[in-house]
Amino acid sequence: MTSHPHSSAARARSVADHAAAVAQLLRPLRSADRTESLPLTQALGRGLAGDVAAPISLPPFANSQMDGYAVRSGDIPDAGAELRIVPPVPAGSSPQPLEPGTAAPIMTGAMIPAGADAVVPIERAVPDRFLEPGHAGTVKLPPAAAGTFVRSAGSDIAAGEHALVAGTCLGPAQLGLLAALGIPEVRVYKAVTVLLVTTGDEVVEPGSQLPPGKIYDSNGTLLEAAMKQAGLNVRRAGISTDSPEDLRALLRTQGQGADLILTTGGVSKGAYEVVRQAMADQPVEFLHVAMQPGGPQGVGTFDGVPFLGFPGNPVSCLVSFEMFLRPALSALLGAPAARLPLRARLAGPLTSPAHKHQVRRGTLRPGGTVQLEGGEGSHLMHALAGSNVLVHVPAGVTELAAGDEVEVWML
Amino acid sequence: MTSHPHSSAARARSVADHAAAVAQLLRPLRSADRTESLPLTQALGRGLAGDVAAPISLPPFANSQMDGYAVRSGDIPDAGAELRIVPPVPAGSSPQPLEPGTAAPIMTGAMIPAGADAVVPIERAVPDRFLEPGHAGTVKLPPAAAGTFVRSAGSDIAAGEHALVAGTCLGPAQLGLLAALGIPEVRVYKAVTVLLVTTGDEVVEPGSQLPPGKIYDSNGTLLEAAMKQAGLNVRRAGISTDSPEDLRALLRTQGQGADLILTTGGVSKGAYEVVRQAMADQPVEFLHVAMQPGGPQGVGTFDGVPFLGFPGNPVSCLVSFEMFLRPALSALLGAPAARLPLRARLAGPLTSPAHKHQVRRGTLRPGGTVQLEGGEGSHLMHALAGSNVLVHVPAGVTELAAGDEVEVWML
Repeated sequence: MTSHPHSSAARARSVADHAAAVAQLLRPLRSADRTESLPLTQALGRGLAGDVAAPISLPPFANSQMDGYAVRSGDIPDAGAELRIVPPVPAGSSPQPLEPGTAAPIMTGAMIPAGADAVVPIERAVPDRFLEPGHAGTVKLPPAAAGTFVRSAGSDIAAGEHALVAGTCLGPAQLGLLAALGIPEVRVYKAVTVLLVTTGDEVVEPGSQLPPGKIYDSNGTLLEAAMKQAGLNVRRAGISTDSPEDLRALLRTQGQGADLILTTGGVSKGAYEVVRQAMADQPVEFLHVAMQPGGPQGVGTFDGVPFLGFPGNPVSCLVSFEMFLRPALSALLGAPAARLPLRARLAGPLTSPAHKHQVRRGTLRPGGTVQLEGGEGSHLMHALAGSNVLVHVPAGVTELAAGDEVEVWML
Repeated sequence: MTSHPHSSAARARSVADHAAAVAQLLRPLRSADRTESLPLTQALGRGLAGDVAAPISLPPFANSQMDGYAVRSGDIPDAGAELRIVPPVPAGSSPQPLEPGTAAPIMTGAMIPAGADAVVPIERAVPDRFLEPGHAGTVKLPPAAAGTFVRSAGSDIAAGEHALVAGTCLGPAQLGLLAALGIPEVRVYKAVTVLLVTTGDEVVEPGSQLPPGKIYDSNGTLLEAAMKQAGLNVRRAGISTDSPEDLRALLRTQGQGADLILTTGGVSKGAYEVVRQAMADQPVEFLHVAMQPGGPQGVGTFDGVPFLGFPGNPVSCLVSFEMFLRPALSALLGAPAARLPLRARLAGPLTSPAHKHQVRRGTLRPGGTVQLEGGEGSHLMHALAGSNVLVHVPAGVTELAAGDEVEVWML
């Protein structure tokens, strides 16, 4: 390692530049042979691989917005009218045209008969209840302007219009729209498979005894859960020792077919950095991003498989995932969904290093204020577990006061 | 049906009262025999069944926040000192006590040796790189106050403190905390199984031909996806006809073992309301909630199984899920997570009926303004699919102007 810590810190890569590098690394995942067609509900949380045009209009036909009487608006003067009741129009039927001077009982969603152009709700009719089927009779109705309580064909979307654009993350509403359009399957990007390896002689599996000087591995659980929640397939390779040979063997055994190898730990400038050592003959760059926490990062390929090396602290891992991996996948594949940047007011002051983008953890209150949880430390898992947002303090900002606005991302 | 539409509308149940009724209906789901112990990552998205106390402190021992030298702060006067370098402390080791007048190379996360009380970062040392292991030497260090770059034992959480409270929804950070505490399994509420039935002679499955007057079923897909996303098990019973006998038979055949039966459609005051008819001899109440959309609702039990009847329009279904079912489960079982109420400024004006809680759909912009999508209509699936928030206009509010604040829930 020839770089000097001071000069290296001065040359730290910006968050935006590293985000671009991660997006570039993962760019090959956005290819036509990495798409598949799935039944709608299996596509939940996936990104749409191409634009979808509406094959039909919604609604497909003019229909009633209310239970009531379909009428010709011109039949009813200002004073109202008594009209003869014709057979009812249930939802799902294809009704006869409406004769002048008549009123057809019609249910919500049922097709407006040809000739009718308005619906009078049942509660404005006299009598205000429907006759038993088969009974003849008349009904007194107030006037209704043409179009009243009629949902016109195509008023939600017209056939041929774009229903959804490529890269849309498919949630319940988007899948519901495809169903409403009669589309049973949808072409989406395949789920990304990640091999996740925690490194460090100091970490042991939860549930085992904790020898002095050791800590339990939380990075594995934290990142597996975050990536599963984001719709990725996660393959856990357990904890590697601090031997570069062991780590290389593990990656070669378990990395088969993975789209991405992700390690935690072993990427900074200390004397025992297993990931750096294991990647010595691979095209992997280790660098410092001007971000706190999560500065030390690795990016490249291992035996040709895209590789990211996150730092060893759990908060740094989550911040790295949210700052680099999630946005890259979201932009390339439409999924997972990007975090929506929101504005909130700080409940208290904060300080931040001048040349770093600081990511704090906080609790966003309903009123729109955000309370920081824990300090700057990247080891504060309890504080993270009590937070619901990440709080961004851009590089260049060194102090903020209570009441100042910050950008927050809901977790 | 003896109730008069006008008087019934006047007696519409408030949103809060109906939410309480749904919570009461589902109360039996919160019982000790409906909990299970799961490995951490399988518990993702579940609600914690009991408080969890920290079995150990975090950090478990005082450790270094930096790569650098562990020192006795009293050894270094203001002018700095040259100290003899002793063997390094890698992370995971249990070091010897630090002799006075010496400095121990220490890696981030490694245990602070007994006697040491501060860490000087490597970049402030001269030389500013670690010696090769085994080489003897000295290092010049500036002074450091006691505690500098030392993470003290228990500074995140102390053994015995509450780590997580019952009812916490377990996301990546909460599971990561449990892992950090060495806890490999966690007791959570079992996932709720819902039998979902769409009703209506007018609805047909996506992918089939669309006869005149019919529409494609979107409620089934929309609600299945929403409930899956919320961590529920969903059993789809397809589309029931408008025959009450068919519906009852379907529920009896497929409802075995379900925790909840959920139907869509057939609950309003029209002439052909299959759900109302099928429930005629069951303790099910059909009522109108003072809410738009989603007013007509059914609540009760069918053969003893909790039952909810949502209205037939897709937007009404999603609104019903978000207003009643999600909050009830969230409050009872800790999962799915409750929606966080946020404040946003309207991009344009709106009107709302005086006596109803109106739920509009909108797009929340990063700047904190919300643009309404589509109109009030509950059939506007395309508009819903373009929205990212629900916008709340409480009962009693009839007009709001651009710039007025509203409560929004992110979808």
